[in-house]
Amino acid sequence: MFTRPDVLPGTCAAACFNQFKRHPPLIHCLTNEVVQELTANVLLALGASPAMVVEPAEAAQFSRLADGMLINIGTLHSARAESMLAAIEAANQAGKPWVLDPVAVGGLVYRTAFAQRLLMMRPAAIRGNASEIMALSGLPASGRGVDSNDDSLAALPAARELARSSGAIVAVTGVVDYITDGERDWVVTGGDILMTRVVGTGCALSAVVAAFCSLPGERLDQVATACRVMSLCGEKAVARCSGPGSFTSAFLDALYQLKAEDLQ
Amino acid sequence: MFTRPDVLPGTCAAACFNQFKRHPPLIHCLTNEVVQELTANVLLALGASPAMVVEPAEAAQFSRLADGMLINIGTLHSARAESMLAAIEAANQAGKPWVLDPVAVGGLVYRTAFAQRLLMMRPAAIRGNASEIMALSGLPASGRGVDSNDDSLAALPAARELARSSGAIVAVTGVVDYITDGERDWVVTGGDILMTRVVGTGCALSAVVAAFCSLPGERLDQVATACRVMSLCGEKAVARCSGPGSFTSAFLDALYQLKAEDLQ
Amino acid sequence: MFTRPDVLPGTCAAACFNQFKRHPPLIHCLTNEVVQELTANVLLALGASPAMVVEPAEAAQFSRLADGMLINIGTLHSARAESMLAAIEAANQAGKPWVLDPVAVGGLVYRTAFAQRLLMMRPAAIRGNASEIMALSGLPASGRGVDSNDDSLAALPAARELARSSGAIVAVTGVVDYITDGERDWVVTGGDILMTRVVGTGCALSAVVAAFCSLPGERLDQVATACRVMSLCGEKAVARCSGPGSFTSAFLDALYQLKAEDLQ
Repeated sequence: MFTRPDVLPGTCAAACFNQFKRHPPLIHCLTNEVVQELTANVLLALGASPAMVVEPAEAAQFSRLADGMLINIGTLHSARAESMLAAIEAANQAGKPWVLDPVAVGGLVYRTAFAQRLLMMRPAAIRGNASEIMALSGLPASGRGVDSNDDSLAALPAARELARSSGAIVAVTGVVDYITDGERDWVVTGGDILMTRVVGTGCALSAVVAAFCSLPGERLDQVATACRVMSLCGEKAVARCSGPGSFTSAFLDALYQLKAEDLQ
Repeated sequence: MFTRPDVLPGTCAAACFNQFKRHPPLIHCLTNEVVQELTANVLLALGASPAMVVEPAEAAQFSRLADGMLINIGTLHSARAESMLAAIEAANQAGKPWVLDPVAVGGLVYRTAFAQRLLMMRPAAIRGNASEIMALSGLPASGRGVDSNDDSLAALPAARELARSSGAIVAVTGVVDYITDGERDWVVTGGDILMTRVVGTGCALSAVVAAFCSLPGERLDQVATACRVMSLCGEKAVARCSGPGSFTSAFLDALYQLKAEDLQ
Repeated sequence: MFTRPDVLPGTCAAACFNQFKRHPPLIHCLTNEVVQELTANVLLALGASPAMVVEPAEAAQFSRLADGMLINIGTLHSARAESMLAAIEAANQAGKPWVLDPVAVGGLVYRTAFAQRLLMMRPAAIRGNASEIMALSGLPASGRGVDSNDDSLAALPAARELARSSGAIVAVTGVVDYITDGERDWVVTGGDILMTRVVGTGCALSAVVAAFCSLPGERLDQVATACRVMSLCGEKAVARCSGPGSFTSAFLDALYQLKAEDLQ
């Protein structure tokens, strides 16, 4: 029987956020070519430290030093795939969590096979839109690109199944976000449709998920808090902007100014 | 005898823009490393969907799915050149139009040879500055970098010749833009010199040209409309900004807010 | 005996800046994937021309045409390392200055070995934070990532030693910047801690250093002026912004509006 999940409590989000601010993590980002600057700036605005280290041997060395890692396959190519595999192996050996953003998996053969391979390497969390999560879970997806055509609620059963089979926390994000460990779920609302008109907001969210995953404590709560931080700052920015250009500036400012009280 | 071309009529631009808004295209962008974020954000602000898929086999697969493609050789290297060739072949087989932005061709040997090779692969349109268009057409160019030293009107005969020999619509852009199919031309005015102080405005225009080329109808009008959309939003943004930083933000907002009436 | 260096005189900075504005240089940037757009926009805002040419043969050809070059190893990988070596050799043959930004050298083996190799290729200047400069000089460093844990004054002896052994002007930047040729030093103050919350401000400074190095005259003064231009515009931008998002926009505007009088 389908259970409609509860909204993440503000007190829980505030507690996770306070923890983040006390120990802002260093996050290794192996992400796509298009969104690297925004991804770094989102982490910096929150007080975390991003670093992109890409040569395979060095990427592996750095994964051991960083607190957590993001793997985003948006512009995957064979040389970068090699770096990712080396970095993931090293992170796993060092007990450092890593997060998978399976950009546009489903229709595209090369990245879908690679993402399936990564699934077996024990990601701490997976963050995707409905069509990506459905495709990863083995259910048929309808997306032809990076934007999802499936409603995130419709993908919740697939997300739960994927969480159980992979052992990862799965966040399926869209107008509403659902975060699940396969047994329990949280709902996160907020954000704004304007965020889909700015490249990289989803990719940057995945980096923030990696940052929260690097903290001790309940990982389901941490991932949901990452989603809430971004949706709340998205709302704040939309209220102050007049389009996607002024949104980005206001969004980074909002992340920088965010306080735990705002999440309650 | 040289005929001075007419200005693109506002009614024509408005009709093309309405068509674009009814069917916002998905555009595959194989572009340079520097401008990927702005390129994606310009397409998103207009309502289109950008995607960058770079591994050769996957780039070819995606070219068949996308509505149109941009090929920009600004940071060409051998691996990306291979992706571009695979993607263009697939696009041609699927009957999808692609646009060439021949960044800095002329003096630089490697890219100039590559651009000459691409010319024989039937681009739907070519968008460049005066020195790039003159270099591609075989006439001597004076540029040493990405900024053109030649006036765009001086390059119009070269643009017409290039359009006739390649079968592409050619847009030679600068203070004034000239768009030609080799027989007929349109003039587009507007824009602002400040746009040359922001990296990627020309590259993003080429992506917008690819988006308009993917629509049915008169391709000469579509390409000229792409130029007019960018020059008009450039003017609007300049009126609201105090330098190149605030320009970018205002420019994306203006693209997002643009209505067909504004073009009339 | 340790001599505390003097602050760069405003008249000196103003004179160098005037020279820059009379002959804005063309700068070849081989820099990291994350900061390319900001780097280009900073150079453009100041009136200079950036270009990124990456295929080895073409990078070498372009190094001879450009006025100066930046080498930044933030996302170094083997293919790009090859391009850098080809470009540096060509620049040296043509007598064009190049600047090294040794991002995160110290702990990371691959890039540290590469940076040591580059040191022997006669950079005109080196710009780094305290831990990077200490690592390059052979002294132990404490950084684990791109942010420095060492105070820049503590790194001044290492900077002087590195300047003497390499023949380069060395700029060690942080809350306060120290610029040295091994015998004489300048201090540059200004800037703001908020600049550490925006990715690429240091990397962009290195590109501005390359631009000033391409001018004739006293190179120690030129490099210090580059630091002062950035720190002053940083201050101006911080006064007008409400976070790291609005900072970037205000910073580019301030660079665009900067006049020699402002430096006096």
